[in-house]
Amino acid sequence: MTDLPDNDLPHALLTGYRNFMSGRFANESLRYKELAEQGQTPETMVIACCDSRAAPEIIFDTRPGEIFVVRNVANLVPPYAPDGEYHSTSSALEFAVQSLKVKHIVVLGHGRCGGIKAALDSESVPLSPSDFIGKWMSLVAPAAETIAANTLMTSGERQTALERISIRYSIANLRSFPCVDILEKKGRLTLHGAWFDISTGELWVMDRKTGDFIRPSGE
Amino acid sequence: MTDLPDNDLPHALLTGYRNFMSGRFANESLRYKELAEQGQTPETMVIACCDSRAAPEIIFDTRPGEIFVVRNVANLVPPYAPDGEYHSTSSALEFAVQSLKVKHIVVLGHGRCGGIKAALDSESVPLSPSDFIGKWMSLVAPAAETIAANTLMTSGERQTALERISIRYSIANLRSFPCVDILEKKGRLTLHGAWFDISTGELWVMDRKTGDFIRPSGE
Amino acid sequence: MTDLPDNDLPHALLTGYRNFMSGRFANESLRYKELAEQGQTPETMVIACCDSRAAPEIIFDTRPGEIFVVRNVANLVPPYAPDGEYHSTSSALEFAVQSLKVKHIVVLGHGRCGGIKAALDSESVPLSPSDFIGKWMSLVAPAAETIAANTLMTSGERQTALERISIRYSIANLRSFPCVDILEKKGRLTLHGAWFDISTGELWVMDRKTGDFIRPSGE
Amino acid sequence: MTDLPDNDLPHALLTGYRNFMSGRFANESLRYKELAEQGQTPETMVIACCDSRAAPEIIFDTRPGEIFVVRNVANLVPPYAPDGEYHSTSSALEFAVQSLKVKHIVVLGHGRCGGIKAALDSESVPLSPSDFIGKWMSLVAPAAETIAANTLMTSGERQTALERISIRYSIANLRSFPCVDILEKKGRLTLHGAWFDISTGELWVMDRKTGDFIRPSGE
Repeated sequence: MTDLPDNDLPHALLTGYRNFMSGRFANESLRYKELAEQGQTPETMVIACCDSRAAPEIIFDTRPGEIFVVRNVANLVPPYAPDGEYHSTSSALEFAVQSLKVKHIVVLGHGRCGGIKAALDSESVPLSPSDFIGKWMSLVAPAAETIAANTLMTSGERQTALERISIRYSIANLRSFPCVDILEKKGRLTLHGAWFDISTGELWVMDRKTGDFIRPSGE
Repeated sequence: MTDLPDNDLPHALLTGYRNFMSGRFANESLRYKELAEQGQTPETMVIACCDSRAAPEIIFDTRPGEIFVVRNVANLVPPYAPDGEYHSTSSALEFAVQSLKVKHIVVLGHGRCGGIKAALDSESVPLSPSDFIGKWMSLVAPAAETIAANTLMTSGERQTALERISIRYSIANLRSFPCVDILEKKGRLTLHGAWFDISTGELWVMDRKTGDFIRPSGE
Repeated sequence: MTDLPDNDLPHALLTGYRNFMSGRFANESLRYKELAEQGQTPETMVIACCDSRAAPEIIFDTRPGEIFVVRNVANLVPPYAPDGEYHSTSSALEFAVQSLKVKHIVVLGHGRCGGIKAALDSESVPLSPSDFIGKWMSLVAPAAETIAANTLMTSGERQTALERISIRYSIANLRSFPCVDILEKKGRLTLHGAWFDISTGELWVMDRKTGDFIRPSGE
Repeated sequence: MTDLPDNDLPHALLTGYRNFMSGRFANESLRYKELAEQGQTPETMVIACCDSRAAPEIIFDTRPGEIFVVRNVANLVPPYAPDGEYHSTSSALEFAVQSLKVKHIVVLGHGRCGGIKAALDSESVPLSPSDFIGKWMSLVAPAAETIAANTLMTSGERQTALERISIRYSIANLRSFPCVDILEKKGRLTLHGAWFDISTGELWVMDRKTGDFIRPSGE
C-alpha cells in the first residue's frame, strides 16, 4: 500500500521530531519532566481551528504546559446539549473548566478559514454522502445566510465578517454551559475572542464590551 | 469580573504573540503570505489530544501549512455514524480527506493522559451532571474495563496499555469511514499511530502490521 | 458680536499661519513662487471627507502642488447628472480630469465618519428643516439600509463596512462620468480607493480587482 | 491599464504616507487615539479651494482635529436652497454648524485661482458637454461680468478683485442659511474671509466691517 516501512512516520515528521529532541526538548527537558510528574496546570484553554496555518502554540509562542487546546473545523462551540451523545468539544470544555480549572478560554479564529468559506458558499456540494462538514458548519447557518446575501460586501469582506461573527457566536454558546456561566459571573473565568490574519500575522482581539475586533494595545 | 482591559488577552499570550511576530513570523512572512494566497495543502492530518504538553506542531517541529490538526480529549476517533448530528472529529476527518486530500493520518497519543486516566478509574465521579467527558471516554469503555481489571499490571502499565490500545482503536474507527477505507486500499492514504512520552520525550511509532509501538529507526 | 477685532482670524489659525511662514514656507518659498508662476500641475486628485482628523495633505505628507483636493461630507461622488444644476463635486472632477489632466483619482475614506454614522442611524433626526445632510447621505441609502439591518455585526463593524462600501460606490459613480470612463479605458487615468484608520494611523488600500481593502505592501 | 499592482497607490502618496507614520503620527499618536475615541470637536470650519497649492491645514499649520474643511472649486458657497436636491457644500455647512457647533467659519480664497480665471474669461469653452464647471462658476457670474468689463484694471488686478469679491459673496450666502444667520446674530458664530497669496505666502484677512482685505496685525 505504501513505500514506507511499517513503523515509519512521514519523513518530514520524523525529521521534525529529531529537531525537537535536539533543540526544544533538550533545552526544556527539566520542564517536561516536571510536567510529567506533577501533571498539567494550564491557565488557559484555546479553542482553535484545525487549519495547518493557525496553530495556537505557534501564534502565542507558548511553552509546554501553558495552553489546553481543542481544535475543530472553524473553531466552533456547539450549544450546551446534555443529551447523552458524544460531544467532543463539550467534553474538552468540561474537562478544562471543571477538572483543570482554567481561568481563561480563548476562541481563536483566523482569516481564509475553509470551513467558513464552505458555510458561505450556498452552491457547495457535500464532500461525501454523510456530509459531516455541512452539518457541522450548519452551526453558523443563519449568520452565514445573512452574510452571504450581502452582495455589497466583497467575498473577502463577507468571509472576514462571518469569521468574526462565528467567534462571537461560539463565545455566546460557551455561556450556555452552566459551569462557564457561573464561573464567569463569579469572576473566576474570562472569555476571549481573537482573530489571526494569516497573510499579515496581525492578531485582532475582541473587545469584551462591544464585540469589535481591534489590535491589542501596543501593536 | 476581571482586571484585564476589555480587549486584552492574558498577558502571557500577548507576550508570546510578540515573540512570534518578531521571531518566527518575521522569518517566515513570505511563507505565510503564500499560504494565505494559495491556501493550505497539508499532506498530513494529525489527531491529537488537547493536553497542554503534547502539541503536535511542537513535537514534530512543523512549519506553518504542514499538518492539519484535530485535537480532542484523548485523541479519539468515534466510529462512522452518518446520523445527521454534529460530529466535530468526523467533520474534520471528512474535510482533510475529501477536500484537502491528505496522504497521511497520524493518531498521536501520549503518556499521562487525563482522559485515559479517568476512563480507567471506575470510581471517578462525573465532573458535571451532563457528564460529557464520561460519555466521550465511554468510546473506549470495553477496553478500559478489561485493562482496569488486570491487577497484574501496575497502574502506570495499565495507563500506557490503554493509551496504546485506544490509538489502535481510533485507527480501526478511521477505517469505518468509507472514504478512508477506499483511499487506504488504493494506497493513497496511510494511517499511522504514535505515542509520545512527555517525561522522556521519546516517540514510539505503531507498527502497521503488528500494532506494536516501537522506537522509530535511528532513535 | 465677537471679541475679536474686525480683521482677526481665530487666534490658533494666526499662530499656525506664523509657524507656516517661518517654517514650511521659508523652506519651500522657491517652490511656491514657481507654482504661482507656472500654475499647478498635480498628478493626483483626492476626494476626501471634511473630517478634521483626515486631511489628505497630512496623511500623505504631500508637498504644495502635489494633490488637487475635493472635500465633502463622507467623501461621496454623486452619479453623473448633467441637469444644469450646481454640482460642486462634479465640477471639481471635471476641472481635475479635463483641465488639469490628473492621472490618478483617490477616494479617501476614513474610520468613525460622522456622515456614515448618520446614514446608519435610522432614528437620526434631521439637523435642520432643510435636511441637507440627510439628502446628501441618501446617496448611500440603499447600502446603509442593508448594512444597518445586519445585527450580527457590531455597530463598529457596520460602520467600517459602510465606509468601505461607499468608497466602492463613489468609484463606481466616478465611472459614470464619460470623461473618467474613457480615460480609464485608455489607461490614462487610474481610480483608487483608500481608507484611513484614525485610531491606529493604518492606511488600507482597495484592491482594484476584488474591491477588498488591504494594507499596502511593505506596511 | 496601469503598471501599478492592483492594490497600490501612486508611489509618491505611499512614500508620503510612510513619512507621516514615522513622523507626525508617531509624535501625535495619542492625540489621534483620543480623537478617534472621543470624536472630533473642531472649533472652526474652513471653506477652501481644491487648488493643490492652498491646503488650509498647511497654511494654518493645524493639528489633527482642529479644522473641519470643505473644499470645492473657488471656495464658493451657494445660496440657501432647500429644494431636496444634493447639496455638497450646504450639507457640510449644516453638519459643521448644527452637529459640530463650530464657532468660526473661514472662507479661504487664494491668488491665481483657476476657477475664478475661467469665470473671467468669457471666451472660455466648456471643458465637457455637461459643463459642470461653467455652471458652478456661474455662481459669481454677475460679478465676473462686471469685473471682466473693467479694462482699466490689469488682468492680474481683475483676477484678484474677483477672488476677493467672491469671498464676500460666499460670506453673504452663508448668511442666507437660517442657522448661520441666527447663530451669528447671537454672537455664537463668527464669519471670516481670508485670501492667500501663493507666490509670497502672504495672508490677507477680510475686515468684517468694511470688507477690505488687510494684513493681519503683527505681519
